[in-house]
Amino acid sequence: MKKVKIGVIGLGQRGYGVLTSNLLKMDDLDIVGVCDLYDDRVERAVKAVADVKGYTPFGTGSYEEIFAIEGLDAVYVATCWETHVSISIDAMRKGIPVACEVGGAYSLEECYALVQAYEETKTPFAFMENCCFNNSELMATAAVRAGALGHIVHCSGAYGHDLRQEVSHGNLWRHYRLNNYRDRNCENYPTHELGPIAKILNINRGNKFVSLVSIASKAVGLAEYIEDKKLYEQDDTLKDTHFKQGDIVNTIITCEGGETILLTLDTTLPRSYSRAFTVRGTKGMYEMDTNSFFFDGMAEDFDTCAYYKRCIDNGKEYEERFMPDLWRSMTEEQKASGHGGMDYFIYREFIDCIKEGRTFPIDVYDAAAWMCITCLSEKSIESNGAPQAIPDFTKGAYKTRKPLDVINLNKENL
Amino acid sequence: MKKVKIGVIGLGQRGYGVLTSNLLKMDDLDIVGVCDLYDDRVERAVKAVADVKGYTPFGTGSYEEIFAIEGLDAVYVATCWETHVSISIDAMRKGIPVACEVGGAYSLEECYALVQAYEETKTPFAFMENCCFNNSELMATAAVRAGALGHIVHCSGAYGHDLRQEVSHGNLWRHYRLNNYRDRNCENYPTHELGPIAKILNINRGNKFVSLVSIASKAVGLAEYIEDKKLYEQDDTLKDTHFKQGDIVNTIITCEGGETILLTLDTTLPRSYSRAFTVRGTKGMYEMDTNSFFFDGMAEDFDTCAYYKRCIDNGKEYEERFMPDLWRSMTEEQKASGHGGMDYFIYREFIDCIKEGRTFPIDVYDAAAWMCITCLSEKSIESNGAPQAIPDFTKGAYKTRKPLDVINLNKENL
Repeated sequence: MKKVKIGVIGLGQRGYGVLTSNLLKMDDLDIVGVCDLYDDRVERAVKAVADVKGYTPFGTGSYEEIFAIEGLDAVYVATCWETHVSISIDAMRKGIPVACEVGGAYSLEECYALVQAYEETKTPFAFMENCCFNNSELMATAAVRAGALGHIVHCSGAYGHDLRQEVSHGNLWRHYRLNNYRDRNCENYPTHELGPIAKILNINRGNKFVSLVSIASKAVGLAEYIEDKKLYEQDDTLKDTHFKQGDIVNTIITCEGGETILLTLDTTLPRSYSRAFTVRGTKGMYEMDTNSFFFDGMAEDFDTCAYYKRCIDNGKEYEERFMPDLWRSMTEEQKASGHGGMDYFIYREFIDCIKEGRTFPIDVYDAAAWMCITCLSEKSIESNGAPQAIPDFTKGAYKTRKPLDVINLNKENL
Repeated sequence: MKKVKIGVIGLGQRGYGVLTSNLLKMDDLDIVGVCDLYDDRVERAVKAVADVKGYTPFGTGSYEEIFAIEGLDAVYVATCWETHVSISIDAMRKGIPVACEVGGAYSLEECYALVQAYEETKTPFAFMENCCFNNSELMATAAVRAGALGHIVHCSGAYGHDLRQEVSHGNLWRHYRLNNYRDRNCENYPTHELGPIAKILNINRGNKFVSLVSIASKAVGLAEYIEDKKLYEQDDTLKDTHFKQGDIVNTIITCEGGETILLTLDTTLPRSYSRAFTVRGTKGMYEMDTNSFFFDGMAEDFDTCAYYKRCIDNGKEYEERFMPDLWRSMTEEQKASGHGGMDYFIYREFIDCIKEGRTFPIDVYDAAAWMCITCLSEKSIESNGAPQAIPDFTKGAYKTRKPLDVINLNKENL
């Protein structure tokens, strides 16, 4: 079988990382072009491909030149948040299958345009939410599908990641987060926690988001960090920078089925990393932070710390029952391919979908529904938390679309 | 010194428990009257007092008869939620100092009336939020006062307590929660987590609550529990009972200082107990569930479960620095007096305030501000999460009132 010819657009931290840790390790694809606005990033990527593959890919600052490559099978877009959608739309309009990295939308119009481009062209579109492929989230999903947690009522999750260094070095490191934290105040990065939750709740497939409210705390974490580290000595624009982005943003989504979802953006105060992924049902709960299940009837404890000491990591005991085979059989090399292994699965699945003509399990309707949380949260925050309606991008088709998991959950064993 | 003469009004689970575990163990007070609408509860309490004290207190079904007891120094009110405020108002209007158990308000009018009764009579009023006296919350408060967590930005907390048995047995056990879960949908019990947070954020003392949004999940936990246990065989009214109270209610409060507070009511799904009390600042965080501090610069971990395994209960290492002397020196008998010891401190403090003519550190303005969250959350939920303004019951006095901790935090050591 011929190799899949891929162009990589966007060669910053994520694009270069995926190129070198994932794409270059796959034998059944060729990197035919690499693109970035910065020449040095293009040169570094060209060299990385040449070192591994033994040929020199086309390097350019223009993504349209990537689209024009003869025999191109697909592009992977890992640019700044601001251009994910427009480049993906342009790719689809040219008939080029596209894998789009995650982020949040800047407007509802952008989300509608993305869906429209897909519907008019039927060009394959994949939304690369890697956390949907992670072991903890999939184990919980399998438990849900098995009915072990009962009727699902509420889910929560967070993007808890101290990004003060990355954001404040945005000019020095050429990272787009700086401008976003300066100019916007919103749930700017919802999909890592929301994606797996939306899959569990069958959003766009029998269920839908109805509305949200969003509230931001004050913004003081970045300013204090910059002051403490005297970072304006390295980047004098930081001296006058006022950050709009609240340190903690909480967003509550209501679903048509009556389920609620709590999302927390938590990126500019000191903390250890957490996605705080939690699923609550009438028969039990799963908490990713402590990798713990609580099933109805298990011993309770008024001393919560004693409870967690006893139950932390009890998820291990349920792996045989709920952990998908794909995770149970993964190799050390696969685990090393990024974020503990989940990156391996999602990029592998994208390539396999291209080769086999299958639809990627996270589609354009998922992308639109998950990304629109960002611009709607911005509106809610601006209006002191006023509820915002969330569009149904499927135009009613969600009522009959069938639930779809991102991988085989070995349901025959559940 | 003469003994303090106390009347106890409300002899259900809480009233009888506090009577026997706390009040009857204090040598410097006499229980001169006990009151409940149910005769058997009165008889049980009269007997409990007689057994310990050797005299028979006045027993009645009328709280007004308690108020009429000659030489009465104070009353403790632990009735159903519906009557805490009106009985407290009546007591103050009679000039009888009152300790009022916690709960949520049914209307803003009720909160205004409580404040007005106090302002017009200046009768001592104490709001008995015991969690304000708990070790974890006080240790975190001391850390905040010491500046160890930096500028405080966000706090969260929950009432995570599986009450399905108690609520569903409401008719059998004569518990008021049943009617509340049937007829209301709100943050019905906010103060256990909100009290300590409000103290940390100096609410009514330099800061104030400004507004809230509240969203409830569907209500399915109780109905499924009743069905599973066939409880309608014991109480046939349960057969037709529809519960309005959502299983999970999330409420976000915004403060004038820009801080946000997330409250979660979580009482009708399986879980172990948790107040999820968490304080976030620019220099660190404290989480009560895991009794853990994270200070800026501590090692982070992308494997959250590994992080928690390493850091769980590290709060112990900070007790010498931050735990108040009162907790470090407590006796086994004090610890046995209810809820791990916090009940000892709060009832002791109430009696001491009566004896010494001091103002109780949780006052009528705290009570009104904390309890009004309930009726405002009800309105917000009814209107799909529309923001609700939170009154300033101090009428502007919060701007000059000084911060006040509930006990001595040994600030000289901090």
